[in-house]
Amino acid sequence: MDAGENRFAEAPAAQPDRPAAAVTGTLFGVGMGPGDPDYLTVRAMRVLEHAPVLVHFCKKGRRGNARTIADAVLPPEPAREFALAYPYTTELHPDHPDYVGALAAFYDDAAGQLADHLGAGRDVAILSEGDPFFYGSFMHLWRRLKDRFPVEVVPGVTGMSGCWTKAGTPITWGDDVLTVLPATLPAADLAARLAGTDAAVIMKLGRHLPKVRAALREAGLLGRAVYVERGTMAGERVVPLADKPDDVAPYFSMVLVPGEGRRP
Amino acid sequence: MDAGENRFAEAPAAQPDRPAAAVTGTLFGVGMGPGDPDYLTVRAMRVLEHAPVLVHFCKKGRRGNARTIADAVLPPEPAREFALAYPYTTELHPDHPDYVGALAAFYDDAAGQLADHLGAGRDVAILSEGDPFFYGSFMHLWRRLKDRFPVEVVPGVTGMSGCWTKAGTPITWGDDVLTVLPATLPAADLAARLAGTDAAVIMKLGRHLPKVRAALREAGLLGRAVYVERGTMAGERVVPLADKPDDVAPYFSMVLVPGEGRRP
Ligand SMILES: C[S@@+](CC[C@H](N)C(=O)[O-])C[C@H]1O[C@@H](n2cnc3c(N)ncnc32)[C@H](O)[C@@H]1O
Ligand SMILES: C[S@@+](CC[C@H](N)C(=O)[O-])C[C@H]1O[C@@H](n2cnc3c(N)ncnc32)[C@H](O)[C@@H]1O
Repeated sequence: MDAGENRFAEAPAAQPDRPAAAVTGTLFGVGMGPGDPDYLTVRAMRVLEHAPVLVHFCKKGRRGNARTIADAVLPPEPAREFALAYPYTTELHPDHPDYVGALAAFYDDAAGQLADHLGAGRDVAILSEGDPFFYGSFMHLWRRLKDRFPVEVVPGVTGMSGCWTKAGTPITWGDDVLTVLPATLPAADLAARLAGTDAAVIMKLGRHLPKVRAALREAGLLGRAVYVERGTMAGERVVPLADKPDDVAPYFSMVLVPGEGRRP
Repeated sequence: MDAGENRFAEAPAAQPDRPAAAVTGTLFGVGMGPGDPDYLTVRAMRVLEHAPVLVHFCKKGRRGNARTIADAVLPPEPAREFALAYPYTTELHPDHPDYVGALAAFYDDAAGQLADHLGAGRDVAILSEGDPFFYGSFMHLWRRLKDRFPVEVVPGVTGMSGCWTKAGTPITWGDDVLTVLPATLPAADLAARLAGTDAAVIMKLGRHLPKVRAALREAGLLGRAVYVERGTMAGERVVPLADKPDDVAPYFSMVLVPGEGRRP
């Protein structure tokens, strides 16, 4: 589908008659999987190995998590990689106009930097946690660049697949309906959506865990909920939510409500 | 977590003092990804290479799809692999007692065959399309064997990740709620669930496409729906559902309704 497909599958054909400026780089969104580098795909490994420019997002002054996933397979290579540091993270509400404005400016600027590399013919790979097209920051750069440059997205194992695997529980059986909810939603919305589903995944927990716990209780699902922190990563923790004594949850955590559908 | 974790990471330690009967094999559920073998994980490749017994599901007289995904990386090896052929597929409704009974007997029998291998100390790998714990047939064998043998599940890229990647569209932005629906649900349920979600994935299409199309129209979502057939596989087809002239859909097809959430 994408113009960049299989870009690294064989040696690029020589194009002596084409002016150099016409040869643009390909933008890769590389799904890095849930954390364990063993869950990288064959395609992701190949792109990480070959792309001349590697980019990841991070919080100011912190190591980017998508980059950490690659540590086991990719030595630090300052010559070909750089980080894009978010302007802020949790200080302002995501709908606050200042936040939206600052983020838009950040993505515009980042897209400009990548466009310079792509325009000069250098492939750029953006390391994305899980799957790039599932709540990924990559999407904001993709949106700004996709009409000007060839794109290849490499799908990845999602964080939620990694989490239900490590929780040791199937998430959906038979005709189960699965609802994926960001914990950022209002409490009443969360409770209503949870009440009407067979199985659920609640992402982006962080400071929203008290609200999520209350919504699960209201929906009668607290007893089935499993809390997973840093699934498949170093420091992984899996515990029934009812047994978790506190409401402290890092960014990389989620709650699973496994379905109970048909089991012949 | 699982007892079998990293079973192939290093050479097994010699255990001269342990009676042979105590050494059971590990049951592996291997996520094969959406179809393109480049989307197999590093861990899946390792397990496929080493497991002494490889098992896949198929329809009677047909090649199993999970096995086809492995074709590019795994030559046919009659000595170490066998297929489990379903008793029937679409002749009876899934809730019909005859169907449930026949399936249960089939899974019981299959679990018995695998238990013989596992009990004799041979690891068994079950090839599973996409992710094994997401509507996977593997789960029915896992359920019957998990308390008797060590288990390792290898998460995979789901079919839906492969499909939205090839459709060239992110599925969820910002605070979007994603609802995953089996097309087997009654029409009214489908329409109600679709009306209340930001983004949707409708799986197990097959002969249910006319019903799905009507539910999408009722929910006002037909214009946003994308039909994906055999995503990432040979014979892939991506088309806006409104442009698809017929209602013929194979087993490996789904409908996506991409979310339209926050895009700073
Ligand atoms: C912005 S979303 C990105 C999702 C990612 N693109 C994916 O496919 O999983 C970030 C959220 O994903 C969840 N998440 C991703 N990986 C995780 C992991 N390994 N363990 C726990 N939560 C994870 C957390 O809820 C986190 O807040
Ligand atoms: C029993 S479910 C198995 C799902 C699988 N475990 C996964 O993780 O994707 C089978 C359904 O998955 C969907 N599916 C899986 N892979 C697909 C692909 N490559 N293209 C289209 N649909 C796919 C189809 O809707 C099919 O009916």
